[in-house]
Amino acid sequence: MQPLDPDWERRVRESFLRQDFMQHLGAELLAVRPGYCEIRVPFRRELTQQHGYFHAGVSGAIADSASGYAAFTLMPTNSSVLTVEYKLNLVAPAAGDALLARAEVVRSGQTLKVCRADVFALNKNAETLCAATLSTIMTMFHRPDS
Amino acid sequence: MQPLDPDWERRVRESFLRQDFMQHLGAELLAVRPGYCEIRVPFRRELTQQHGYFHAGVSGAIADSASGYAAFTLMPTNSSVLTVEYKLNLVAPAAGDALLARAEVVRSGQTLKVCRADVFALNKNAETLCAATLSTIMTMFHRPDS
Amino acid sequence: MQPLDPDWERRVRESFLRQDFMQHLGAELLAVRPGYCEIRVPFRRELTQQHGYFHAGVSGAIADSASGYAAFTLMPTNSSVLTVEYKLNLVAPAAGDALLARAEVVRSGQTLKVCRADVFALNKNAETLCAATLSTIMTMFHRPDS
Amino acid sequence: MQPLDPDWERRVRESFLRQDFMQHLGAELLAVRPGYCEIRVPFRRELTQQHGYFHAGVSGAIADSASGYAAFTLMPTNSSVLTVEYKLNLVAPAAGDALLARAEVVRSGQTLKVCRADVFALNKNAETLCAATLSTIMTMFHRPDS
Repeated sequence: MQPLDPDWERRVRESFLRQDFMQHLGAELLAVRPGYCEIRVPFRRELTQQHGYFHAGVSGAIADSASGYAAFTLMPTNSSVLTVEYKLNLVAPAAGDALLARAEVVRSGQTLKVCRADVFALNKNAETLCAATLSTIMTMFHRPDS
Repeated sequence: MQPLDPDWERRVRESFLRQDFMQHLGAELLAVRPGYCEIRVPFRRELTQQHGYFHAGVSGAIADSASGYAAFTLMPTNSSVLTVEYKLNLVAPAAGDALLARAEVVRSGQTLKVCRADVFALNKNAETLCAATLSTIMTMFHRPDS
Repeated sequence: MQPLDPDWERRVRESFLRQDFMQHLGAELLAVRPGYCEIRVPFRRELTQQHGYFHAGVSGAIADSASGYAAFTLMPTNSSVLTVEYKLNLVAPAAGDALLARAEVVRSGQTLKVCRADVFALNKNAETLCAATLSTIMTMFHRPDS
Repeated sequence: MQPLDPDWERRVRESFLRQDFMQHLGAELLAVRPGYCEIRVPFRRELTQQHGYFHAGVSGAIADSASGYAAFTLMPTNSSVLTVEYKLNLVAPAAGDALLARAEVVRSGQTLKVCRADVFALNKNAETLCAATLSTIMTMFHRPDS
């Protein structure tokens, strides 16, 4: 998958920093490659549901942002990115020191891109898959992101 | 739809208060009825994406919690609630003074319950549908919520 | 919801007749209104899964076609309709004399339309909800359907 | 992933033959391994939508059956398999000599199993991804499949 904007990485990283909600979660953007993106969020009590695990909304939020930015790496200059929809399966308790979302573009159409993301619960050296998503992302042409 | 636990409302409200993530979002539980639940979150800059609207993760989180608690109203004593999966369509920018999720149980099986939730952006007196979800919620028998 | 093509009903009905798969299922197009569509398929043994109920694929197929045509009623002349994705929950056994899908447009954007469909199992005078869907439909501009 | 029933393959193949709808589509069960299943359906005009491609309902039906049987390989004796829900993204026109669904179990819980399936359009020696699904499958304990 070939980026259309040579400045794709800077564009993704700057956009991420403008997502105040990612800061509110304490999320950080890790690897970004054409068609691929990783977001990590360390455990904090503020992010939990009633049993003390990460709330599903946190998994959903970082899977969504990672998918959007994986898609955004492939979009032309002067466009912005919009999530059309996503579907998330919670497959194990999100119990760990951190959550890590890994998203990749499965199919890159001009207007719509389809992404898959996996969210892992990290515990010392172990990774456990805790959520899997499938999503549709749209290119908004002629609407710069900033 | 008939609650199996006479104490369903207290159980839901107490569980909600134990979801630290809901507090972190500034969310409040409004109406709770058998098979129905509403959650509202006022606008704060910490909840935005890169264009200044509510992040999709916020819509997803309150739709998920509202759906889970709509289902929880119908579950027996000594059970707890688990989201199996949800699918969310973002249908308009989440731009407003607050977001309101309204969730209802569409089908109440013993083990699995299927819910629909709509998320509205509230602006003065107007409501705009900004997200629609369909989700599957599981009863965890013999595992009290607290 | 206002049709953009005065000939919307004829266009939908002719397109349906060109879906050979609908004929293969024995499906019939019932009511079509702006933003709304119904498709019915009578029981036949050829449509069953291993327990003798309608196969989930039949529910999926008629929910998908009904959603697509509900959306198509609102599309401009010289466009065609494409399903981007759908999500389907099977909420009760599809046991009955016929299945009926009722689809409606929840949000009608210019390019993308979001639809909900319910599929009912019909038994004499009773209707039982057996599947619920949420889907995204795309307008293909400048590509006539026929 | 370890089968719990030593007779898992025979059980899957016999169940498939009882799905009359798979016969009606002309579908054949190819490889079956623990946690994995493939179903193929050759092109026939009866399976098309209005533009002459395979109808999305065909992709949905074989992805669903393949996912269900991938999950069924891991279920205990005296159980049967039920699709709770699936989500399907159509990523390219389903244009080809045949469609091939490849499904695998992503997470095998006792009651619920989560599967991913990809559907490919086959053309001579080329394979094109045309649909991607994510689904939830349930074990029905103490209900033999036949």
